Amino acid sequence: MFATSIIAKKRDSQRLTGEEIRFMVEGFVAGAIPDYQMSAWAMAIVCRGMEVDEIAALTDAMLTSGVRMGRTHDRPRVDKHSTGGLGDKVSLVLAPLLACFDVDVPMLSGRGLGITGGTLDKLEAYSGFNCHLSQPQIDRQLDRIGCVIAGTTADIAPADRRLYALRDVTGTVPSIALITSSIMSKKLAASLDALVLDVKFGSAAFMRDLNQARQLADSLCATGQRFGVATRAVLSDMNQPLGRMVGNACEANEAVQVLQGAGPADVRELTLHLSAELLVAAGKFADCELARLALVEALTSGRALARYQAMIAAQGGQFNPQLELAPSSTLTAPSGGWLQQVDGQQIGQTVIGLGGGRMRLEQPIDHTVGLEMMVRIGDRIESQQPLVRIFARSPQAAERAATEILAALTMAEKPVAPLPLIHSL
Amino acid sequence: MFATSIIAKKRDSQRLTGEEIRFMVEGFVAGAIPDYQMSAWAMAIVCRGMEVDEIAALTDAMLTSGVRMGRTHDRPRVDKHSTGGLGDKVSLVLAPLLACFDVDVPMLSGRGLGITGGTLDKLEAYSGFNCHLSQPQIDRQLDRIGCVIAGTTADIAPADRRLYALRDVTGTVPSIALITSSIMSKKLAASLDALVLDVKFGSAAFMRDLNQARQLADSLCATGQRFGVATRAVLSDMNQPLGRMVGNACEANEAVQVLQGAGPADVRELTLHLSAELLVAAGKFADCELARLALVEALTSGRALARYQAMIAAQGGQFNPQLELAPSSTLTAPSGGWLQQVDGQQIGQTVIGLGGGRMRLEQPIDHTVGLEMMVRIGDRIESQQPLVRIFARSPQAAERAATEILAALTMAEKPVAPLPLIHSL
Repeated sequence: MFATSIIAKKRDSQRLTGEEIRFMVEGFVAGAIPDYQMSAWAMAIVCRGMEVDEIAALTDAMLTSGVRMGRTHDRPRVDKHSTGGLGDKVSLVLAPLLACFDVDVPMLSGRGLGITGGTLDKLEAYSGFNCHLSQPQIDRQLDRIGCVIAGTTADIAPADRRLYALRDVTGTVPSIALITSSIMSKKLAASLDALVLDVKFGSAAFMRDLNQARQLADSLCATGQRFGVATRAVLSDMNQPLGRMVGNACEANEAVQVLQGAGPADVRELTLHLSAELLVAAGKFADCELARLALVEALTSGRALARYQAMIAAQGGQFNPQLELAPSSTLTAPSGGWLQQVDGQQIGQTVIGLGGGRMRLEQPIDHTVGLEMMVRIGDRIESQQPLVRIFARSPQAAERAATEILAALTMAEKPVAPLPLIHSL
Repeated sequence: MFATSIIAKKRDSQRLTGEEIRFMVEGFVAGAIPDYQMSAWAMAIVCRGMEVDEIAALTDAMLTSGVRMGRTHDRPRVDKHSTGGLGDKVSLVLAPLLACFDVDVPMLSGRGLGITGGTLDKLEAYSGFNCHLSQPQIDRQLDRIGCVIAGTTADIAPADRRLYALRDVTGTVPSIALITSSIMSKKLAASLDALVLDVKFGSAAFMRDLNQARQLADSLCATGQRFGVATRAVLSDMNQPLGRMVGNACEANEAVQVLQGAGPADVRELTLHLSAELLVAAGKFADCELARLALVEALTSGRALARYQAMIAAQGGQFNPQLELAPSSTLTAPSGGWLQQVDGQQIGQTVIGLGGGRMRLEQPIDHTVGLEMMVRIGDRIESQQPLVRIFARSPQAAERAATEILAALTMAEKPVAPLPLIHSL
């Protein structure tokens, strides 16, 4: 087999065999296939696509480039993955919430990059929180608490890590096939029984339109099923931040509100929806209605919050229900109307500008800065009404953020319908 | 400007600006854009294509990455380029033939690679022939003799040389845009007034079908015209070797036959056709009919041959009208019929197997080996009739070649029409 022939085959829109796909991935990891061949192959995949069986073979090759987590007992293992957006603190609530139902949630998560926030960064807002856990540490914590949120270890899907770094600099990120195999190889390494995917679309999401998101959701589910994991997907709106808070400590605080049975309706609704899907997929409840009732009880009773506190403590963090934030100022509406549109990319850039996000992985992050969105698309807004609270390190930074945010909000003179949060597949 | 954004733009089928194209090519040559980005960009170009103005900008960027030949006097400068095939010795005849008409022919040529033979390899069959000429040497020879056939110098279109090496190993060769800019950047560096392109199609050509060849011809002509060069193209059949001889010394000998006014009809016809196009484009004759009459006279009078001998001598070669060949054996037809098809790729591989071609540029070549095709598609063949004469170094090599050639020839039981040599654009 020759790399050049395999590249040419995909270039000519032909279906690759499992052997050919494995040859490429293994050769790449071993250093036998250079970056310049791999990036040409990736671009051919972006342009010509892959069939379901090719995607499965690619996922398998990435998965087997590393190790799979062992299982120490037979409680069902479940996990959720989101394709990323603004203000998405669902993982912080969902992991301890599900752990109340005798399932294990081994959540391997990432850092924020670009406008997408990172679950690990949010948890590190708790002083001392450690997300670098070894496999035995993860196993022990699952045994004791039922949930863990930690960083991916170096021996999980190393082929994906290397390929992702290359895709990032060669314009080969947007491919259903490549995204599917990247997500699924890492999730399958956790030896899950059930997985739910929160595929986001809209101005602050990677996928801008619902149709693309649906294609990705279909591909993720088909691939999960092939590997014997009960995989479900939810399409959720990301045309504005999820919840009110965007930023690291801000979002941790909002997650605690939801864990206390309160918090913004959209965060609560999406968390309950995703959690119910998982509990049904894991065979814990007959249907989502029953699962929801039980989940709501776990929130209102404080059981989920207790589990969250235990998880923070187990990973060395100092729990604080109201982490301190940077000084705040309020942006008010210069005129009245209805909020029609939010430029999610701009809002994300503004949070990065405040110091709450990063463009490169090695950049440090300020956990205390962020935004509170006080209005949502469809809201009637009066002149001088508060729109956004800005948590910033300096008045200058707050001023700059205010100007940017104002430009990112589009007002209408006539009523605007609010956006539905969850769409059916 | 960022390379990743420019790659993404082409990936998304958008038209690139001249500045963006220049940024990529200049960055690549300067080492600022790594191979892995350039190969992803090349694959995006293969998959998404380029418009005429993008191809012109790419050609210009490659051209200006190096030097252009100066002009020491104002005789028209003309050249021919062929997209390559088997037995194509037209350049050896055409350059000295045209030089008889007070035009300069500064032909910068290449080595054989894969099944395509190389003009320089054929000329090096003359002992002592030197194709490494400096620019002043080329200028002097043009002044004195009017034609030169030499290797491309390192300072001509270095971007093309680097990009071609990368395309070769990344499956990004077959692209009208990339082929056009590669050919034209080198040809434009010779500061030509007129150029004729012999675009070949068929089993022994890079382009297998007439339609692809026509697209390439259109693209080459459009690009040449944009740069102010009178550019014409001819589509010629390459479903079987051109002429009878395939191999280096073999082909040099056959070229001499044509220069003596004899030789196979197809080589003579194609040479006259391409030469007439050039003389008309250079303004030497009012139409191709008149040009042909004069060209035939230059062959039969021996003027063209004298010019050829002068060129060989000027470049240090020992002219010999009948270069010695390796020992020959004859392959005869096992049964009768009509010759229907020739597998050109296989015939080319057989010549490489005999030692007459190379798969990598650093491989040595045996000038004395080769084949004489004694039959053409459409010929009636009797059982035991000689089909091919094989010039080989050993009986074993000849035997292996005979077996391969027999498998490459397809016979029909009913009459087969001969193939037309030249197709209109």
